[in-house]
Amino acid sequence: MRIKGYVFTLFFVLGVIQDSVDGRPLLLSLSRPHPDSAADFARWLVSQNSWGVLKNVVSYSDGLPNKGSGIPYFYLTTLDPTASNALKDQRSSFTISEYPIGTCGKTDPENPTCAKITLTGKLKLLDGNSDEVEYARTALFSKHPEMKDWPKGHNFQIFKLEIEDIFMINWFGGPKPLTVKEYLHIEMNKVAFVV
Amino acid sequence: MRIKGYVFTLFFVLGVIQDSVDGRPLLLSLSRPHPDSAADFARWLVSQNSWGVLKNVVSYSDGLPNKGSGIPYFYLTTLDPTASNALKDQRSSFTISEYPIGTCGKTDPENPTCAKITLTGKLKLLDGNSDEVEYARTALFSKHPEMKDWPKGHNFQIFKLEIEDIFMINWFGGPKPLTVKEYLHIEMNKVAFVV
Repeated sequence: MRIKGYVFTLFFVLGVIQDSVDGRPLLLSLSRPHPDSAADFARWLVSQNSWGVLKNVVSYSDGLPNKGSGIPYFYLTTLDPTASNALKDQRSSFTISEYPIGTCGKTDPENPTCAKITLTGKLKLLDGNSDEVEYARTALFSKHPEMKDWPKGHNFQIFKLEIEDIFMINWFGGPKPLTVKEYLHIEMNKVAFVV
Repeated sequence: MRIKGYVFTLFFVLGVIQDSVDGRPLLLSLSRPHPDSAADFARWLVSQNSWGVLKNVVSYSDGLPNKGSGIPYFYLTTLDPTASNALKDQRSSFTISEYPIGTCGKTDPENPTCAKITLTGKLKLLDGNSDEVEYARTALFSKHPEMKDWPKGHNFQIFKLEIEDIFMINWFGGPKPLTVKEYLHIEMNKVAFVV
């Protein structure tokens, strides 16, 4: 009982100090869900990391820290082939590793217990004036503070990955069955204090 | 003069202690080449990281620590689609970020000064008895000690990426022109003490 309370307090404190460490988001702030809770786990993984591979290495955000929507938003310039190709062919897959979050400890990045997720779908340019663009901009700039100062002339625009399929390995026994509906339905509040 | 000697000694010491930190390779041991030295930089980036994205997140090694050949070797099981797909269609691209090495500091992972490299080519299964397999096994097991204990029944095999094209961003101004020949020709000894 005392231990549970202590852990709860610890994660609460980590949540509060999150934005203030070196002006850079502290990645580990929510606890790691049990690998069997596939949707919780996937949402945790996406919300805790800040970059992945979308043909090239790109930064992303799925929402304010600890309030992720599960949908990855990107801030891309068409000077980079990742964005210019997407305007021609939207089909994309985006891969994120748990390893840089720090929660794999000494486990090898390829070990199935060190999680990895690939979200496959369509990379779409967002309309410049929608509510979703405002949401995505806040999501991106809160996790990647330097983005707001990136050169205006480079025509950075906001894209989102419309997820059609999820491939996640977070334990032995192959990929976890997980539908997009299950993934999007989870509320991050539920994930927050699973210990 | 004194500073140069100090830096040299520092990197020498880092090189020596490399294998002994927590039984896990210490990633930062060679100094970061100047971004204009494209081949040196690419070889440094590949030799210093230990994982990347090849459709999925995989571990790799290009040689003994600080003696990288530039060719990424993988230890894959055909239980994972990455390997089983490669046996049907060898075309692959492998992306590595500088960010997890730790040398980007507070720079955002997407910032062009935080380097990223994509090696495109053919993923080939190595013949089980060749000298190259022995070299690759030593390269892999020295950087990923737990691999030697991975379950025998899972039929892990050694693959290599035969590089045909290199796309590297390590500064402003777009991808660095870099041929495969230039990349493979560099000797890591030359890279070792660039400060």
